[in-house]
Amino acid sequence: MNILIVHAHPEPQSFTTSLKTTAQQTFKKLGHRVEVSDLYAMQFSPVASKEDFLELNQPDYFNYALEQRNAAKQNLLAPDIQAEIEKVKRADLIILNFPLYWTSVPAILKGWIDRVFVSGLFYGGKRFYNHGGMAGKKAMLCLTLGGRTHMFGENSIHGPIEHYLSPIQRGTLAYSGFEVLPPFIAYHVPYISQEARETILEDYITYLTHLDQLEPLKFPKLEEFDEKLYPL
Amino acid sequence: MNILIVHAHPEPQSFTTSLKTTAQQTFKKLGHRVEVSDLYAMQFSPVASKEDFLELNQPDYFNYALEQRNAAKQNLLAPDIQAEIEKVKRADLIILNFPLYWTSVPAILKGWIDRVFVSGLFYGGKRFYNHGGMAGKKAMLCLTLGGRTHMFGENSIHGPIEHYLSPIQRGTLAYSGFEVLPPFIAYHVPYISQEARETILEDYITYLTHLDQLEPLKFPKLEEFDEKLYPL
Repeated sequence: MNILIVHAHPEPQSFTTSLKTTAQQTFKKLGHRVEVSDLYAMQFSPVASKEDFLELNQPDYFNYALEQRNAAKQNLLAPDIQAEIEKVKRADLIILNFPLYWTSVPAILKGWIDRVFVSGLFYGGKRFYNHGGMAGKKAMLCLTLGGRTHMFGENSIHGPIEHYLSPIQRGTLAYSGFEVLPPFIAYHVPYISQEARETILEDYITYLTHLDQLEPLKFPKLEEFDEKLYPL
Repeated sequence: MNILIVHAHPEPQSFTTSLKTTAQQTFKKLGHRVEVSDLYAMQFSPVASKEDFLELNQPDYFNYALEQRNAAKQNLLAPDIQAEIEKVKRADLIILNFPLYWTSVPAILKGWIDRVFVSGLFYGGKRFYNHGGMAGKKAMLCLTLGGRTHMFGENSIHGPIEHYLSPIQRGTLAYSGFEVLPPFIAYHVPYISQEARETILEDYITYLTHLDQLEPLKFPKLEEFDEKLYPL
């Protein structure tokens, strides 16, 4: 397999970075090829803007999605975006590796999605969910957070973690056609012992070694809806 | 009332920008004071980084939340962050005004939250939800999107819009203590007529004129949980 890890943590000694490195090493041992986009190290710009296109199709009224569609067709995407698209194209599996900031991805990772998941290639017209542009590829989240497991779930103080992850897992990855594997979540990270952290890293190695045994998350299929996207 | 509108669209002629301007004008007519943070016009940096602090408390291991807590106490926050914090402090109501990008906020707005909602001021220890740092203030989303209303909700193709908005409405605004008003959502915007757009702007004026009649969204209260945050 070709694997792309997109990593978004500013501290190279962080536990989130250790998870990234653990995945890198584990996949290499298993004989896979691994690429890493270390967004902080790359100083990746997260702001969707006119600078993302070598030429604008409609310079007097800036519509980001329309410019993406045009630029993807005409090879007019900025080089940093095009490079990330090539990495995603090469990958059979992408892993987004990040600390949960405000129950969501850090802005630098959100901007990687906003800028790289271009209209026309990742989705467009009726090409989404199981017909999305990335159909045939897998994706997975690996995240760290401060809360404890009992703080998430129905009737818990924060509610189900799945709701917070739905913009990324459903609205982004599944929508673009990726088969989404269950997330690997490291809870309570800032407050646990070195020993507990090592246990999590061992669990992650086991998780990654048996990815093919994971049941992918369930999302809608276009065939369950009519032409206007009403349920059949 | 003092109102802060945080606006995140790169095109000044966009419908999302018209919603911002409409809110600005409506509130002024009603006698309120309005400030606007136009993130694209300000070239607001969304990347949480070491540059956010005039001095680091722990330069050899960068922990963003801990540095925020220290810097908020010692007046060591970067001037662009401190300026936004002052705007939020002055405001009785904040409106986040944005186009939905990947069922979520654009990266530039996510970064405004990551950098401005600092630990120690907005939350910290047992100060969250109804005891959050911003308790007593209101907040509201105004967003535009491409989908139609029937594509969202239980059993619809994309599921409930509330799930996608939960990182921002629950995990961010309610968590920080804001009373969250129901969002104003403009559907199908890229595909509708000028007349339909004008109707939405009129509806928005009516909405904003009767804010005090809106029932705030419901979120947990700390009193419903024990010391370890298990439900009572």
